[in-house]
Amino acid sequence: MKPSLTIIKVGGAVVEDEAQLTQLLRDFTAIQGPKILVHGGGRRATKIAERLGIETKMVDGRRITDADMLEVVTMVYGGLVNKNVVARLQALGCDAIGLTGADANILLSNKRPLKNDIDYGFVGDVKQASGEKIAHFIEAGLIPVIAPLTHDGMGHMLNTNADTMASETAKAMAAAGYDVTLIYAFEKPGVLRDADDDNSVIEKINHADFEAYKADGTISGGMLPKIENALAAVDAGVKRVIITKATAIDGEHGTVIMQ
Amino acid sequence: MKPSLTIIKVGGAVVEDEAQLTQLLRDFTAIQGPKILVHGGGRRATKIAERLGIETKMVDGRRITDADMLEVVTMVYGGLVNKNVVARLQALGCDAIGLTGADANILLSNKRPLKNDIDYGFVGDVKQASGEKIAHFIEAGLIPVIAPLTHDGMGHMLNTNADTMASETAKAMAAAGYDVTLIYAFEKPGVLRDADDDNSVIEKINHADFEAYKADGTISGGMLPKIENALAAVDAGVKRVIITKATAIDGEHGTVIMQ
Repeated sequence: MKPSLTIIKVGGAVVEDEAQLTQLLRDFTAIQGPKILVHGGGRRATKIAERLGIETKMVDGRRITDADMLEVVTMVYGGLVNKNVVARLQALGCDAIGLTGADANILLSNKRPLKNDIDYGFVGDVKQASGEKIAHFIEAGLIPVIAPLTHDGMGHMLNTNADTMASETAKAMAAAGYDVTLIYAFEKPGVLRDADDDNSVIEKINHADFEAYKADGTISGGMLPKIENALAAVDAGVKRVIITKATAIDGEHGTVIMQ
Repeated sequence: MKPSLTIIKVGGAVVEDEAQLTQLLRDFTAIQGPKILVHGGGRRATKIAERLGIETKMVDGRRITDADMLEVVTMVYGGLVNKNVVARLQALGCDAIGLTGADANILLSNKRPLKNDIDYGFVGDVKQASGEKIAHFIEAGLIPVIAPLTHDGMGHMLNTNADTMASETAKAMAAAGYDVTLIYAFEKPGVLRDADDDNSVIEKINHADFEAYKADGTISGGMLPKIENALAAVDAGVKRVIITKATAIDGEHGTVIMQ
């Protein structure tokens, strides 16, 4: 039987709120078996950039990362957020280790080429995730805490979307022989039939369900790429992806996306 | 026979100068066998703090680390400097992994108590270094790159002197069964008989030599604690400590401190 592995992805809003972070780290600690935490930190980066006099430019919700902004995200994601999460997990008895894609070369990226004439700057599109390297840490009893940064193999760090970091890590761990559950923790209790009703969580979505929800307009906007991403992970061997509230990461709540 | 291990400690002045850093990383890459890099980053932290409107206070060359400054050093040492060094070593074919004391709990500290009524703030005095944990990374073929930060085991990061990080790591690795050479890379070619003459490098210092040089005034000032620290490391099992120029870290240059 394959060993099971839980990967939790938590966004900046939770990581940067003291009460929410405390709760999340407690819940994460309570998860049995091998686990990985992937975190964001965008709001904190925006705040620090502002204090440094560096303007934050976004296009379609994605940060334009020029050389100055790359310094900010490397500091904030790889240093401030990552090390504080690691220290707090250590205090809870979790033997955490903070990693970016450059550390032990676990996630290698290509710098994103121009897209529709938009230069995203120092942004990485993951080209290789080393499940075996990550598995080595897990087998040593360590709990990886992954910041949304990769490298290009030529000496440069690259800003990388945290959702993508999580799904690429999940796929690599599935390929390395783990039975992977990937949990996206966000502000809603799951994928909703009615955006205004938190009690309308859709329990399960497979490819056919997704096509139907897309056709009738139940699922739209920013949720579309999230679910496409989740289905791609499932197709690549991840057992299931769960989209749930950050206060309900026990695997028993939210929307389950599986084949 | 014990496996040999080289630990290089390099200060902020080298890490923050593009040309010097490039040379240092090339020389570090050329070192045969297992190795560890411990880096500083104080000048960069001072600059970023200034841009953030945070005042840098020093007492006897030591940084007073209040809550704001702790954020700065966590960002700069653990993120900006550490991850850039890791990415650049990866580009040189060194499978580097960036670590602070919190990561895998390799270096645990006590927050420094008041000393002579001076509150150094969030500064750590190392109480436990886990040589076995660090050895595990080395045995996996990884090259630790250690930032001058530890944690208190209660969820807080602590600013920690990089020289101390290096000597505590060296002692722990000696205790874990390695034949350790610890090299302090700095701006001078070694401990000098005549501060104004770079050709006056003292080749070897043991306890007796040190007492003599101290008595006749050859060694004084800031070099005293450096050598006391080095002798303490040697007494604790480190094979030799070398104080040398950052451009001469091959183990063949500088002042050798041994029993």
